[in-house]
Amino acid sequence: MKVVGLLSGTSMDGIDAAAVEIDRVDDALACKLEAFETTPYSNELRADVERVLRDEASVQALSSLAVALGQAFALAAKHMCDRSEGVQLIGSHGQTVFHEPNPADDAGRLPSTLQLGEPSAIVELTGITTVADFRVADLAAGGQGAPLVSYVDHLLLCSQSESRVALNIGGIANVTLLPAGCPVDAVRAYDTGPGNMPIDIAVRALLPDGPGYDRDGAIALSGRVDASLLAKLLAHPYFGAPAPKTAGREQFGETFFRDVMAQADGLEPRDVVATLTALTARTIANEVPRECALVVAAGGGVRNLALMAALRQELRGREVRARLALSNEFGLEPDAKEAIAFAVLAYEAIHGRTNTLARATGARHPVVAGKIVPGSNFSALMRSIFG
Amino acid sequence: MKVVGLLSGTSMDGIDAAAVEIDRVDDALACKLEAFETTPYSNELRADVERVLRDEASVQALSSLAVALGQAFALAAKHMCDRSEGVQLIGSHGQTVFHEPNPADDAGRLPSTLQLGEPSAIVELTGITTVADFRVADLAAGGQGAPLVSYVDHLLLCSQSESRVALNIGGIANVTLLPAGCPVDAVRAYDTGPGNMPIDIAVRALLPDGPGYDRDGAIALSGRVDASLLAKLLAHPYFGAPAPKTAGREQFGETFFRDVMAQADGLEPRDVVATLTALTARTIANEVPRECALVVAAGGGVRNLALMAALRQELRGREVRARLALSNEFGLEPDAKEAIAFAVLAYEAIHGRTNTLARATGARHPVVAGKIVPGSNFSALMRSIFG
Repeated sequence: MKVVGLLSGTSMDGIDAAAVEIDRVDDALACKLEAFETTPYSNELRADVERVLRDEASVQALSSLAVALGQAFALAAKHMCDRSEGVQLIGSHGQTVFHEPNPADDAGRLPSTLQLGEPSAIVELTGITTVADFRVADLAAGGQGAPLVSYVDHLLLCSQSESRVALNIGGIANVTLLPAGCPVDAVRAYDTGPGNMPIDIAVRALLPDGPGYDRDGAIALSGRVDASLLAKLLAHPYFGAPAPKTAGREQFGETFFRDVMAQADGLEPRDVVATLTALTARTIANEVPRECALVVAAGGGVRNLALMAALRQELRGREVRARLALSNEFGLEPDAKEAIAFAVLAYEAIHGRTNTLARATGARHPVVAGKIVPGSNFSALMRSIFG
Repeated sequence: MKVVGLLSGTSMDGIDAAAVEIDRVDDALACKLEAFETTPYSNELRADVERVLRDEASVQALSSLAVALGQAFALAAKHMCDRSEGVQLIGSHGQTVFHEPNPADDAGRLPSTLQLGEPSAIVELTGITTVADFRVADLAAGGQGAPLVSYVDHLLLCSQSESRVALNIGGIANVTLLPAGCPVDAVRAYDTGPGNMPIDIAVRALLPDGPGYDRDGAIALSGRVDASLLAKLLAHPYFGAPAPKTAGREQFGETFFRDVMAQADGLEPRDVVATLTALTARTIANEVPRECALVVAAGGGVRNLALMAALRQELRGREVRARLALSNEFGLEPDAKEAIAFAVLAYEAIHGRTNTLARATGARHPVVAGKIVPGSNFSALMRSIFG
């Protein structure tokens, strides 16, 4: 089945869209990426989203924004359908504008999450049945509504014979632990801590004339890791806290960078960047189980060659050496992996299969995540699956 | 198939829940109401909804309210499932908190509508596949997102041999015109104007010690219609405007009542109530086509005996006499009719059938309204339909 996956992440760069051919081979799924494209948000749309994030939007504006985002996702989906013939299903994550699975006791609020991007707009433009709004069902079952992609990691990457880890390096890095033959209800997944976020912040602050991030890891490769600073940063309480755990800008954003600089007296900018790169590599490696034979990496961080080299070295100096592979070895183009994941989650949902990892999200039980918006192909699709 | 329909209307009294047995007989649907109940909102929940209506809620509060309403709808649904065994599907309208199909040109907003009541909460509590969020798809197709119930009127009440009108008297009154053998894509439906709203407002304002509405029409029956005032009120521009058209509190609420009182010099309260009752009856009757043989009435207004008597008299004094029937003659208990309708709309949606009237809503084409949230019975349900 040809499925389109759509996603806009917390960085709000724009909409990732992937067209994927999904086939069931024996008991496993196989994915083949046919097309991938990122469509940046217009400045106006990004500004509207940011207003909601700052809680400066009226109910009217919020309601309208859900439609505006839906139309933007619809255009991205339509473009994929035009590029890749025969699309039968669309999975759309939408844009998270609020996520509060654990409100403070005195907040007077219930756990809730809000992904905007009206899927009816996608169905209207494409005619194709669309699955959307994937996080709310897990929250209703007592979970954190995340991670969702880890279900797909298990589905596509778990091996019967070797222990593996699926790694995603975005602003934050996260792992899905996949012991050999691990059943779906035992999979653990969580954020290891910093990914690109502190590196990006350091580059923008210390080298304001640069590209805004450490392209190819060139800056880190030209600097030296300061062992003393690295040791201090590793004492951050997040790394000792028990999993499952979630990290974000609160832990490893601007405040963290100010703390880093307060302890980095006299260090060259490139040495700071090198040390932060080592921190990301080390804290990822520390969460790779000792018996793990293969780490499958995806996310923007795989293009940082300094980070990949540091991580490879960390994984080499172990009792059991773990190989570091890129996810495209398994048909999952690193940049496209999350968009592909939402295509797979939609595929599972319309088959009525639970598609969440209760142990990873903390839910009471797995759920079928996603709401199905029937397109004009709905009956034919259901007949092909259940007929 | 046993289906539960859930609804909370603009009056925000609480949640109407109906358990309905739906069967397809030849080419038509037959409905049998098995249970009906209204669960009032808690004062807290109503206050939270009102804060959103006044645009005084934060994004956080709005997001949490969607879950709180979902849990309230879930309890109402669970109660129905406990009373009526074997429920396989739930259709939930939710609570409208914003509806703007035609934003002003300078508002900078897109047409949008917001029905809150997270259906994942219903699925979590009941385990049953739920269809919700019925209005957005019609808006995406350029429609007003209303009326939705008229589709069900056509499905259940249209006759091959006689011309009929389906009438609902809520705060506002609306009609679905059903010429004999009318095809689904030609059905017209719109608001005729005032229903109970001005009567209720008058009773509360002029007889503050009374029950807050004209129980059984007793007040109107004790008063006299003032022909001069009635004639003035019939000059309201709404009645001459072309259909389709929509009325609300803007046209027939408190402001309208102040206008009425400004023209009602010296009239007894009961005469004002009698005249407003006559206005509702007359403006409904004026929209009943001359060839119509049967008006099928539902909504709270059918309990107002003065209103029903006035309407019956209006329909009698015509070239073709139209009989006034209550909807329960067709298995549609008047109070439960709207909740039943959302059960039927959900039933149509999971069959992948379009369930809107494009001519009545103004959409470019009919759509499958409703998003399907898979419960644990989803696969079995799909196999029973498409297998």
